[in-house]
Amino acid sequence: MNMVEIIGKKKLGQVLTHEEIDYFVQGAATGTIPDYQLAAMLMAIRLNGMTAEETTYLTLSMTRSGDVADLSAIPGVKVDKHSTGGVGDTTTLVLAPLVAACGIPVAKMSGRGLGHTGGTLDKLESIPGMSVEIAEDAFIRQVQTIGGAIIGQTGTLAPADKTLYALRDVTSTVDSLPLIASSIMSKKLASGADAIVLDVKTGSGAIMHTLEGSIDLAKAMVDIGTLADKPVVAIVTGMEQPLGTHVGNALEVKDAIDVLSGRTAGALKEVSLLLGSHMLVLAGRVKTTTEGKALLEEAIRSGAGLQKLREIIAAQGGDPNVCNDLSLLPQAKVVKAYSWDAEGYVEDMDTTAIGLAAQALGAGRMKKSDVLDYSVGLVLHARIGDKVEQGTPLVTVYAKDEAAADTAAAKVRQVIKLSPVPVQQPPLWYAIVTKDGVQRFDR
Amino acid sequence: MNMVEIIGKKKLGQVLTHEEIDYFVQGAATGTIPDYQLAAMLMAIRLNGMTAEETTYLTLSMTRSGDVADLSAIPGVKVDKHSTGGVGDTTTLVLAPLVAACGIPVAKMSGRGLGHTGGTLDKLESIPGMSVEIAEDAFIRQVQTIGGAIIGQTGTLAPADKTLYALRDVTSTVDSLPLIASSIMSKKLASGADAIVLDVKTGSGAIMHTLEGSIDLAKAMVDIGTLADKPVVAIVTGMEQPLGTHVGNALEVKDAIDVLSGRTAGALKEVSLLLGSHMLVLAGRVKTTTEGKALLEEAIRSGAGLQKLREIIAAQGGDPNVCNDLSLLPQAKVVKAYSWDAEGYVEDMDTTAIGLAAQALGAGRMKKSDVLDYSVGLVLHARIGDKVEQGTPLVTVYAKDEAAADTAAAKVRQVIKLSPVPVQQPPLWYAIVTKDGVQRFDR
Repeated sequence: MNMVEIIGKKKLGQVLTHEEIDYFVQGAATGTIPDYQLAAMLMAIRLNGMTAEETTYLTLSMTRSGDVADLSAIPGVKVDKHSTGGVGDTTTLVLAPLVAACGIPVAKMSGRGLGHTGGTLDKLESIPGMSVEIAEDAFIRQVQTIGGAIIGQTGTLAPADKTLYALRDVTSTVDSLPLIASSIMSKKLASGADAIVLDVKTGSGAIMHTLEGSIDLAKAMVDIGTLADKPVVAIVTGMEQPLGTHVGNALEVKDAIDVLSGRTAGALKEVSLLLGSHMLVLAGRVKTTTEGKALLEEAIRSGAGLQKLREIIAAQGGDPNVCNDLSLLPQAKVVKAYSWDAEGYVEDMDTTAIGLAAQALGAGRMKKSDVLDYSVGLVLHARIGDKVEQGTPLVTVYAKDEAAADTAAAKVRQVIKLSPVPVQQPPLWYAIVTKDGVQRFDR
Repeated sequence: MNMVEIIGKKKLGQVLTHEEIDYFVQGAATGTIPDYQLAAMLMAIRLNGMTAEETTYLTLSMTRSGDVADLSAIPGVKVDKHSTGGVGDTTTLVLAPLVAACGIPVAKMSGRGLGHTGGTLDKLESIPGMSVEIAEDAFIRQVQTIGGAIIGQTGTLAPADKTLYALRDVTSTVDSLPLIASSIMSKKLASGADAIVLDVKTGSGAIMHTLEGSIDLAKAMVDIGTLADKPVVAIVTGMEQPLGTHVGNALEVKDAIDVLSGRTAGALKEVSLLLGSHMLVLAGRVKTTTEGKALLEEAIRSGAGLQKLREIIAAQGGDPNVCNDLSLLPQAKVVKAYSWDAEGYVEDMDTTAIGLAAQALGAGRMKKSDVLDYSVGLVLHARIGDKVEQGTPLVTVYAKDEAAADTAAAKVRQVIKLSPVPVQQPPLWYAIVTKDGVQRFDR
């Protein structure tokens, strides 16, 4: 087999055989195919697409390119959850302890922030002492003992994806449905879960900006799971604006603790409960998501969820007192509030730009080697549909100095559009995709 | 400027600005843009194309990426000739001495073989003692003294093209009109010629397999020349079968000498005379190609053309006696003739496969570092339209051993298709493209 010929087939829009896909994936995993040939292939896939069967086989081949975690020592159905990435999207920190508090083991492998989106591992590391680099045996013991753990990838899961993911970022081939679906699902299948709940974001802060694109991505990933014999439920949720009000590492930990304490309601809580209730259904703990939501609400009311977060933090070396005393989290040097100087109704915002403003403050990495400032970020007071006028709070910026705060606030102000006439709030979720089809919501 | 954003624009089919094209070309010339980004960009160009203006600007930018040869010390109009590459396509060895014999200076920079196509430099090096690596000042002196020279590129002409050309070969992005046109024309503009005759091949052995594709390529290159203020004439000639009967380095030198001696007529001679007559018109030596052809025919009849080849060979250190005694050329160990074992009319052949069969014998390089065997190749006795039956000569193979000869003959036999009914001979040329438009021929 010959990589130039395989690229040539995809260039002409032809369907690749299993052997050709394996050759490409193995070459990416082992480094025997040079980066320039992988890059040409990625662009050909981006522009000419892949059939559902090619995408599924690509995923399975990528899963097989490395280790597959063995969670069989943990009793019960292990349900994983994955988000395609968003801004202020910290549902894992809310639902992992809540679901664990309901008696379902949560063995979660998470990722780091990339581009404008945050990462669960970075957020957790803002908790003093907290470690996310834990060996697989210790990880499994922790889940057996306290019912939950959130760590970074162990072993060499989907090494082909690691190579391709890094190349996609620098060759403008991130926005490809088969490449996104195979990247996510190969890692999820390799992480050893029995069932998976996917949170597929849609809108200006999501990898897929259109609802149709997001539903197609959800369908592709559900199909892959079905073919790999893993139940998968994908929920298409809104990312026209940040999910939580807080954007930044320690700030999102605070937001999650606020939800778990019952102090905060709103979009972050609602979406966390929806995703968590589907996890409980897949795990067999409840029959319906309505029952599931009630159980999760009760875990908030009783404090069992927050207690579980304390236990997880303590087991991973962190200071559990942050759950009671938020001042133990890293504090920014400068905290500055900004108000609206115009009036109207919030119509629209560029959520990716808001994520990038937080990144520029130091909350995210421009390049892999950047060191994060856990304390910085922003709290957005504007949501789509809000009526604002001069003096209405716009954003509070947490920064290392005033100049950085002013820059971030100016950016945020610039990317939020006002309308003179009332604007409807967008729904929090749009569709649920399972192997049985797509269910759309009109809210 | 940022290469990921430039790739992203072309990925979306948008038109690049001059600044963006310069950034890409300079990065390719200087090595500051990594190969994987260049490869993704090449595939995006291959799949989404470029406008005429983008292609022209790409060419000029590539020309400016390195040295431009200065041929002003040579009096008169310097006319260059370039073929897009074919099999048994050795017109340069025929027309360069013929045109020089008509009093027009021929300062020719040629290339080496690539893939299934031969290269003039490799063919010349099969002549004992012949050197093609000559410094620019010696090159110019030779043209001043004897009126002709054929050498490899001097200086650093179009270094961006060197990088991109090598990458295209290994990323399946050779077959892109803007990339072919800019590659050829950037080198031609950098080589210092005043006017250019292009031989654009079409058919199974050409870079463009369809007539429409070949005409489009011809138009693109003529447009580029016009914009760069260089008269360009492009002739679309047939490559449904090898042009000359001989394929291989020493074998093609022999074929050229046979034509110059007046011993051989046929397609190689006809196309050489057509291209040469256009060179004479562009140089102002004659008014019409009819006059030009007569002048060239006379240079064959008088022996002036063959004498000029002797002088060029001698000036470049080679043994001019090869022109009288073909046995001085490298001789293959095994020469084996094969006949048809079927009957019918030759309908079609895969000329690229025939070129690759010669390459496999050792006449061409599989990879850059391969050492050529100048003696090997094949003489094809079948042309499209020929009636054949059992025992009609098919091919004579020149090889290092019998096994290699048998393999090559089997390949040739396999890729020639017979028809039970008579087949018309294809025309030798299809169209002439100048800045005034396309003139098509029906023969």
